[in-house]
Amino acid sequence: MKARAIILKLGGSAITVKEKPFTANHSAIENLAREIAKAKVPHLVLVHGGGSFGHPLAKKYAISEGLKDPSQIIGFSKAHNAMTVLNQLVVETLIRRNIPAVGVAPSSFIITKSGRIEKMDVNIISKILEMGFVPVLYGDAVLDTRKGFTILSGDQLVASLAITFDADRIILGVDVDGLYTDDPKTDPSAKLIEQSKLNELKREHSWIDKAKVTDVTGGMRGKIIELIPAIEHGTRALIVNGTKRGTIYRALCNEKVKGTIIERE
Amino acid sequence: MKARAIILKLGGSAITVKEKPFTANHSAIENLAREIAKAKVPHLVLVHGGGSFGHPLAKKYAISEGLKDPSQIIGFSKAHNAMTVLNQLVVETLIRRNIPAVGVAPSSFIITKSGRIEKMDVNIISKILEMGFVPVLYGDAVLDTRKGFTILSGDQLVASLAITFDADRIILGVDVDGLYTDDPKTDPSAKLIEQSKLNELKREHSWIDKAKVTDVTGGMRGKIIELIPAIEHGTRALIVNGTKRGTIYRALCNEKVKGTIIERE
Repeated sequence: MKARAIILKLGGSAITVKEKPFTANHSAIENLAREIAKAKVPHLVLVHGGGSFGHPLAKKYAISEGLKDPSQIIGFSKAHNAMTVLNQLVVETLIRRNIPAVGVAPSSFIITKSGRIEKMDVNIISKILEMGFVPVLYGDAVLDTRKGFTILSGDQLVASLAITFDADRIILGVDVDGLYTDDPKTDPSAKLIEQSKLNELKREHSWIDKAKVTDVTGGMRGKIIELIPAIEHGTRALIVNGTKRGTIYRALCNEKVKGTIIERE
Repeated sequence: MKARAIILKLGGSAITVKEKPFTANHSAIENLAREIAKAKVPHLVLVHGGGSFGHPLAKKYAISEGLKDPSQIIGFSKAHNAMTVLNQLVVETLIRRNIPAVGVAPSSFIITKSGRIEKMDVNIISKILEMGFVPVLYGDAVLDTRKGFTILSGDQLVASLAITFDADRIILGVDVDGLYTDDPKTDPSAKLIEQSKLNELKREHSWIDKAKVTDVTGGMRGKIIELIPAIEHGTRALIVNGTKRGTIYRALCNEKVKGTIIERE
């Protein structure tokens, strides 16, 4: 039987310095590379966010709103280029740990339609995995058949890859310990949700409802909503703190770790 | 009527320091970016070689021979990564000149079969061109359905893109003035071939014959052989010295320039 893939998403907040544009968190990336090398799990797909590389330019040029003004054209170039810089840095750090990482540019093989993945040729990633490489993808500025271009989030990409490669689990490395009842950064009474079935989560937490505008969980809602199709497919989602030493290693090795597990049933 | 594409290939020898591994020729890249910005030709596709970024690792790990030993796996990762560094540098320099360059990674959308392009989804490049961007591709370490992996040369890529996008001309920027009867770097009696029809070239210069092993033209034979399908398709090939100021600008603007023109008839 073919081993199921494991998808590791490294949030932009876990690998860049959020407040400083275009600043990588080198020691965090080094540490993550060390843990990934130590865990040595087969069929690993890595996806990282943009953090302070992706967001400033994407915001400045309103890339996710699509092409509305010619001045955005150079902005798309800049946003994509900034992401290739971060990707190259992550890949290089992994290679130094002897991990056969291969950067794969989403904008080179994915087109979206109104912001949702429309066409994704997964042949190459499939072959990359089969040969023992670790593909490293990222949230990227991509072309869009309706809007001209947009931002494809790493989270949407993760869910899509999880379904395609029938992933056993998605490990979401963020900068908090998991999913909380409220935003733990601003509300000290926020409680960590340790384990949840998707239905319970939907029933108990009305914020899962897409229509709600305020994200009480500090940005986690959007991530969970993106992951739902993968969880419904049968992939477990594990949200952990990627900035705490040893956490990603233990999550990769399927050891017990502080965080939130969301399962279908 | 749709404008025909122009394909500009910047040889590795024109943008890197050949003798120093992983060393870009920054002033050459700056100068080329300035000339490309000044020429402002629409439907431009840029392809660059690997030079001192691509060759040392490709050679060390025998990437073009395909996967024969597990020790080559990390070598493929390193070779591809080195090319992304050079590509990122070229793209960034173009962006600084306000050229909306978009790096497109060949390994993310092309698979070869025994070293020849087997599958290339050109939808994205097509859309990139249509929107007014300048796609920037490169010779790359790519996956191969027969050999596991190989090196896809920028020249093979150029010919394939020229046919796909019905290019008006291919401009090959190298570090000599064009195609010579012998290697101009070692033979002072070598004469520049200024203009040639493909049939004349094949008739008069037996070296075009693939079977011959020695390349008397100083590495130009392989390039010409790769371009033949594009020339037969109806694309003119112009070989010029990319290291001489103003040459690429004039070639892009279709002005008279020292070099070799090869046409179908």
